Amino acid sequence: MRQESRKQEIVNAAAILFKEKGYSAVTMRDLATTMGIKAASLYNHIQSKQEILSTIIIELAEEFTSGMNEIVSSDQNSIQKLENIISLHIDVTLRNADGLASLNNDWMHLEEDNLLYFEKMRQDYEDNFRQIVKKGVDVNEIKSNNIEIIVFSTLSTLRTLYLWYPKQKNIDANILKKDMISVLLKGVV
Amino acid sequence: MRQESRKQEIVNAAAILFKEKGYSAVTMRDLATTMGIKAASLYNHIQSKQEILSTIIIELAEEFTSGMNEIVSSDQNSIQKLENIISLHIDVTLRNADGLASLNNDWMHLEEDNLLYFEKMRQDYEDNFRQIVKKGVDVNEIKSNNIEIIVFSTLSTLRTLYLWYPKQKNIDANILKKDMISVLLKGVV
Repeated sequence: MRQESRKQEIVNAAAILFKEKGYSAVTMRDLATTMGIKAASLYNHIQSKQEILSTIIIELAEEFTSGMNEIVSSDQNSIQKLENIISLHIDVTLRNADGLASLNNDWMHLEEDNLLYFEKMRQDYEDNFRQIVKKGVDVNEIKSNNIEIIVFSTLSTLRTLYLWYPKQKNIDANILKKDMISVLLKGVV
Repeated sequence: MRQESRKQEIVNAAAILFKEKGYSAVTMRDLATTMGIKAASLYNHIQSKQEILSTIIIELAEEFTSGMNEIVSSDQNSIQKLENIISLHIDVTLRNADGLASLNNDWMHLEEDNLLYFEKMRQDYEDNFRQIVKKGVDVNEIKSNNIEIIVFSTLSTLRTLYLWYPKQKNIDANILKKDMISVLLKGVV
């Protein structure tokens, strides 16, 4: 347990450094300095900078994947499913905005199997999203606009939340969910 | 004239390289190799990699700024203004998606005065956008949702268009404008 939580501290500190300087520019020495420990002692807890990156990104991607799987397999209608996807993104963003910066900016630095695994999860996520919108259009719950534009505009907003949210002051998670659902699904006019 | 158009070729080729590898990783030698010319002859047309980056980004930012100024000073209502902002982003994206990749990914590599000038233009753009939405809410043309969420969600979608659009096949600009305006302003339900 103690071991695990020390690893988590390292991962959290690394996520902040990656966000500020980008994965490529950060060294294990930078990380040790930031944490006020010796570089050698980092290696008691993790093997490499790559292990840190994959821990950050794969955990987040799995969180989105399991959230999406739960939404897909529920018996809710398309609108409720879209509302739950918006809530899922807000929940993950509020819990780990630093990690999402790594996922968005540095996923391409994942190596080999982790890269493939990540790309597969991201593709499946988008496909599930698209299927929900398509189904909604088919049963007249969603307007028959261009489906690709709906998927693109909703996902680009949700994926950028991690940049926007930290600049907002004291915004309540439930109010944010309600307003974001209204703007993204019902529009502004 | 000949001189000018050669410079434009260099800028266009550089924008593609910056998009693929990121500004920091591209050398003048890479650029010369891509263009099939000698590195030395690049310097007949431009002084530095930094000059290329600032040419790409500042021209685009000025294009957005003058487009926004025209929209702001028109006597249209808030909805028409938002529609024109959406059209402006689509027009610029269709004309220069490569350049927008530099603007989005590499603006922080601008030096000194250009960086300040760019940041000023971006801030003014967002302020103008916010004022249009605020005015629309005041006169009941726009729903009184959270204004910051409207500004954020619309701008994140428009700013990500350069990534999405090149993956779409044969999408007509006017249809794209109509559908994007519908999705962003009227919502999907």
